[in-house]
Amino acid sequence: MKMKGTYDKVVELATRRGFFWPSSRDVYAGAPAGFYVYGPLGLRMKEKIVSLWRREVVFPEGVHEIETPNILPLKVFEASGHLEHFFDKLIECKRCHSRFRVDKLIEESLGIEENLEGLSDEELMKIIVENGIKCPKCGSKEWTGIKKFNLMFTLAVGAEAEEPNAALRPETTQGSVVEFRKSYMTMRGKLPFILGQVGRVFRNEISPRRALIRMREFQQLEIHVFFDPDNPDEVYREKLEPYMDYKIRFLRREDRETGRIVEMTAREGLETGYTINHLITYWLVLYQKFFNEVLGFPLERLRYRELIEGEKAHYALAHWDLEVYTEDLGWVELVNNAYRTDYDLSGHMKVSGNDLRVTSPDGKRKFLPHLYEPSIGLDRVLFHELMLAYREDGERVWLQLPRYLAPIEVAVFPLMKKDGMPEKAKEIYRMLISEGFIAFYDESGTIGRRYRRMDEVGTPACVTVDHQTMEDGTVTLRDRDTMEQVRVRIEELPAKLRSFIYEGKDIKDLL
Amino acid sequence: MKMKGTYDKVVELATRRGFFWPSSRDVYAGAPAGFYVYGPLGLRMKEKIVSLWRREVVFPEGVHEIETPNILPLKVFEASGHLEHFFDKLIECKRCHSRFRVDKLIEESLGIEENLEGLSDEELMKIIVENGIKCPKCGSKEWTGIKKFNLMFTLAVGAEAEEPNAALRPETTQGSVVEFRKSYMTMRGKLPFILGQVGRVFRNEISPRRALIRMREFQQLEIHVFFDPDNPDEVYREKLEPYMDYKIRFLRREDRETGRIVEMTAREGLETGYTINHLITYWLVLYQKFFNEVLGFPLERLRYRELIEGEKAHYALAHWDLEVYTEDLGWVELVNNAYRTDYDLSGHMKVSGNDLRVTSPDGKRKFLPHLYEPSIGLDRVLFHELMLAYREDGERVWLQLPRYLAPIEVAVFPLMKKDGMPEKAKEIYRMLISEGFIAFYDESGTIGRRYRRMDEVGTPACVTVDHQTMEDGTVTLRDRDTMEQVRVRIEELPAKLRSFIYEGKDIKDLL
Repeated sequence: MKMKGTYDKVVELATRRGFFWPSSRDVYAGAPAGFYVYGPLGLRMKEKIVSLWRREVVFPEGVHEIETPNILPLKVFEASGHLEHFFDKLIECKRCHSRFRVDKLIEESLGIEENLEGLSDEELMKIIVENGIKCPKCGSKEWTGIKKFNLMFTLAVGAEAEEPNAALRPETTQGSVVEFRKSYMTMRGKLPFILGQVGRVFRNEISPRRALIRMREFQQLEIHVFFDPDNPDEVYREKLEPYMDYKIRFLRREDRETGRIVEMTAREGLETGYTINHLITYWLVLYQKFFNEVLGFPLERLRYRELIEGEKAHYALAHWDLEVYTEDLGWVELVNNAYRTDYDLSGHMKVSGNDLRVTSPDGKRKFLPHLYEPSIGLDRVLFHELMLAYREDGERVWLQLPRYLAPIEVAVFPLMKKDGMPEKAKEIYRMLISEGFIAFYDESGTIGRRYRRMDEVGTPACVTVDHQTMEDGTVTLRDRDTMEQVRVRIEELPAKLRSFIYEGKDIKDLL
Repeated sequence: MKMKGTYDKVVELATRRGFFWPSSRDVYAGAPAGFYVYGPLGLRMKEKIVSLWRREVVFPEGVHEIETPNILPLKVFEASGHLEHFFDKLIECKRCHSRFRVDKLIEESLGIEENLEGLSDEELMKIIVENGIKCPKCGSKEWTGIKKFNLMFTLAVGAEAEEPNAALRPETTQGSVVEFRKSYMTMRGKLPFILGQVGRVFRNEISPRRALIRMREFQQLEIHVFFDPDNPDEVYREKLEPYMDYKIRFLRREDRETGRIVEMTAREGLETGYTINHLITYWLVLYQKFFNEVLGFPLERLRYRELIEGEKAHYALAHWDLEVYTEDLGWVELVNNAYRTDYDLSGHMKVSGNDLRVTSPDGKRKFLPHLYEPSIGLDRVLFHELMLAYREDGERVWLQLPRYLAPIEVAVFPLMKKDGMPEKAKEIYRMLISEGFIAFYDESGTIGRRYRRMDEVGTPACVTVDHQTMEDGTVTLRDRDTMEQVRVRIEELPAKLRSFIYEGKDIKDLL
C-alpha cells in the first residue's frame, strides 16, 4: 500500500539523482514553470517506455510511424477548431492585475474539487461573486469579466510575416491528419490505416503544476487509426476474438457520483453498444493490457473514465481517459482515448478546399475516414512508474520498477579496491556492456552504500566481485527487492541476468 | 562518380517513397517553407543514425545524455548573446515591401558565390547601389536600409506575460550550459565532463531552401565537452595516442583561395598548434572517423573547413565546419565544431549573478570550464546519405546505402501467390522479425517489380521463396548492389543475414 507523501519523496529523489528537474531554475530562479530537463536516468527510462510501445503497439499493429514538425501553419488550427475552442477561462484582479484560471481560483478558494468544466461564464461569475472570492495575491474582490485565454503558442514565420501565421502544435494529431492523404498514397494504404507519432507538444498552461503532470512542453505517444465508418469491424472482428472475455474497467458517466468501477467484458461492451464498435473496443483492451501487463500498473489502479459533455474535447464523439490512481494524486489521466469521427478531416477539407476523401475498395463510395485516437502522455507515465515503484523500509529506499524498465539494469562492484578485484569487476562490466546490458561500474564508498545508491534508482541486479571470485570464478548477484544474494559463475552471468531482468525470473530459480 | 542532377532525383524519390516531404503542403499549398515530415522510411534511417552515434560516441566517450526543453527563458539568450548576435541582414523593397536576405540578394542578382559574411552594412549597401541591384519581385531599385532580423522565435509564456519572455532554442547548447552545474553535481562529475543532447532546434530562416539542408525546424546531435582550460590534455593525451598518425583533412584559412585540402596528422596538428590541444584534436579525429568509417562517407568527400573572422559564430575562438562534397550541392556543412571557451558560462554567470565556477580537484583554483562542441546536423547527414547512395543503371535505380543503415533490412517475397509459397514466405518473414531484423513482406506484382521497389529504398537483401524452397528448404538471397543471388538454407538465414547486413560480408562468402 502506497502512503501519502510519496509524491514529495519521488520529486526529491528524481531531482537529486537526475531523473528530471525543472528547466533553467538552477541558474535563473524566475524561469517560467512547466518545463523540465530529463537527466540520463530519466531519459533512458523514457526511451525504454517508447521502445516497449513500439514493440507492443507500433510494430504488431502495423502502425506507420511518422514525424511531423512542431510548428504548423495557423490555418491547420483554424481547421481543427483549436483557434476557437482550445482555451482556458481567465479572470484578472482589477487592483493588482494578477490573472487566474477561473476553475482553479474557485476550487482553491472554496476548497472544493468539483467539475466546473460544464459551467457558463455567467454561472462561474455568479459563484465568484456570491462566495465573495478574493484575489489570492492582494485580497481585492474586484474582478474583470471572464476572458478566453488560448493555450497555443503562435509564431510569425518568415521575414515578411507581420502577424502570427503558425503555431506550436498542442497535439501531434493535426500533423497526422494533414499528412493522412499523402501518407495513405505513399504507403499504398488501405483502411483501417494507422499513423503513429512520438513527439513534443506545447500548451501555454496558466497554472503548470505537479512536476511532470501538468507541463507546458511535454511528450506524447499518439496512435491515429483512420477507418471506414461504414465498416469499422472488418479487421478488428478477428483481432478482438481472443479478448472477448477480457474485462475492461470503466467509470461510466452514470457512476460518476458513486465512483463505482464497472468491469465490462469486451463482449458486453459491444453488445450493449457502450464501446461502439470492434475497432474501438480492441484498442481499449489493447491499451489496458499494455499499461497493466507491459508497463506494470496494477489493474485495480487503472480505469477508463467516460467523459461527459463539457469535459469532452471539442472534437470528440466519445471520449475516455485512461487514468491511474495514487494515494497522493488521486486519479490522473495517462491516455486520452477519443473517437474524433471525421471532425478533423472535414475541417481541413472545408478550410483548404481540397478533397480529402478516399474511395471504397469497390470504387462505389467516396467518404472521409473516421479517426480513433489513443494518445499517451509519456511524461505522466514515467512519473507514475516512479510513484508506484517507490518503497521505503527504515533507512532503505528502493524503486521497485519492472526490472526491464530500470535505467541501469546491472551494477558491478569490486568488494574492495585491492587484490585485483577492481580489474576483475571492470572486466565483467565490459563483458556485460558488450552483451547488451545497461551496466554501471562503481568502486567508491562501502559496499552497503553502493547497494543503497543502486536501490534508490531501481537497479534490479548488483554483481559483486569478492575474494571467492578470485578463487572460483563466481560472483554474488543481489536482488534489489528481496536483497537476497546468490552465487553465479561469471560465464553464466549473461544468460542468468537475461532471465532475471527481462523474463522476471525469481533469483532463487537462477541456481 | 556522382552526376549532377542527383539532388532532384533524390528529392523526388524521397517524397514519392515516404522518406520525407514538405510539411502541410499536400493540403495547404501556401504553408511556410522549411518544415518537413519524416515518413516511416526516413524516420527509421534517422533513428539508426542516432543509434550509431550513441553506440560510437555517447557510450564509449562517457557522455551524459540529457534532454532540455525546446522553450527556454529569454534571459538565457540574452546571456548567450543570441539576442544580440543571432540575426541575418535584411533589406526591404520600398515599392512592393518584399524582404530579402542581403547576402542572398547580392549573390543571386550578380550570380556570384562569394563570402559576404565579413562585410559591414555600408559595404553591402554600396554593392547593391553600385550594381543597380533590382527587387526580384517588382524590379524597383528603391531599397530601405539594411536591418537586423533576429532568427529566434520568441514567445510569451504564461497568462501574465505581455511581452516575449522565452524563445525556441536555436541550438541545444544553451540547455546544456544552463544545466551544467546541476548535472555536474547530480552525476558526481569531474572534468572533462561531457553532456550530449539529441533535439530539435528552430531558426526563423529568411530563405529556407534545398530540402533538408536549410530548414526552420531541424534536429541536432550535440556533444558538449566541458574541460579545465589549464589542463585540457589529462585524459585525452592517452585517448589520442593510438591516432597520432591519423590524417585529418583540413581546408585551412590560408588555402581558402586554392581550395587545397591539407592532410595533417593528429601529431602535426598538435605540434604546429593548429588543432590547439589533445582534447580538440581527439574529437576532430573521432568525428572524421565516425563519418567515414561508420556513416560511410568517402574520405575524399570530407574536410574540416576552418572558419575565419566574420564567418565564425560570435562565441567561437576556433571553429571548423566538417563538410561533405557532392557534385550537386558542393561542400555542405554537416558538423559545427566550435571551441566556445568559457564564453557561454561566463555570460550566464554575469546575467544571472550565480557563481558557475567549479573547483579544481586540489581545491586551489576556482574557474569556469571551457566548452568544445561538435554539433551534428542530423537532417543534413540523412540527406547526404541518400545523395551519396543514389545509383542508376538504365531503368534500375538503387540506393547503395551502408547495409546497416537501410530502413528496411530484408524483404521476403513468395515467387508466386500459390503452392504454399505465400504461407512459407510469411513464416520466414515472422521468423526474421523475431530475430530482430527490420523485415518487409510483399506479394503484389511481378518479382522483378518487387525487387525494383526494394532497390529504390536501399533494402540490401531480398529473400525469395520459390518452388525449390518447398522441396529442399532453401531460399534465394539477392544482393541489392550486384543483383547476385545465392541459395541459403532457411535455418541458416538469420546468421548469414547478420554477417551480410551488419558485418558487410560479400554475398559469395556466405556460401
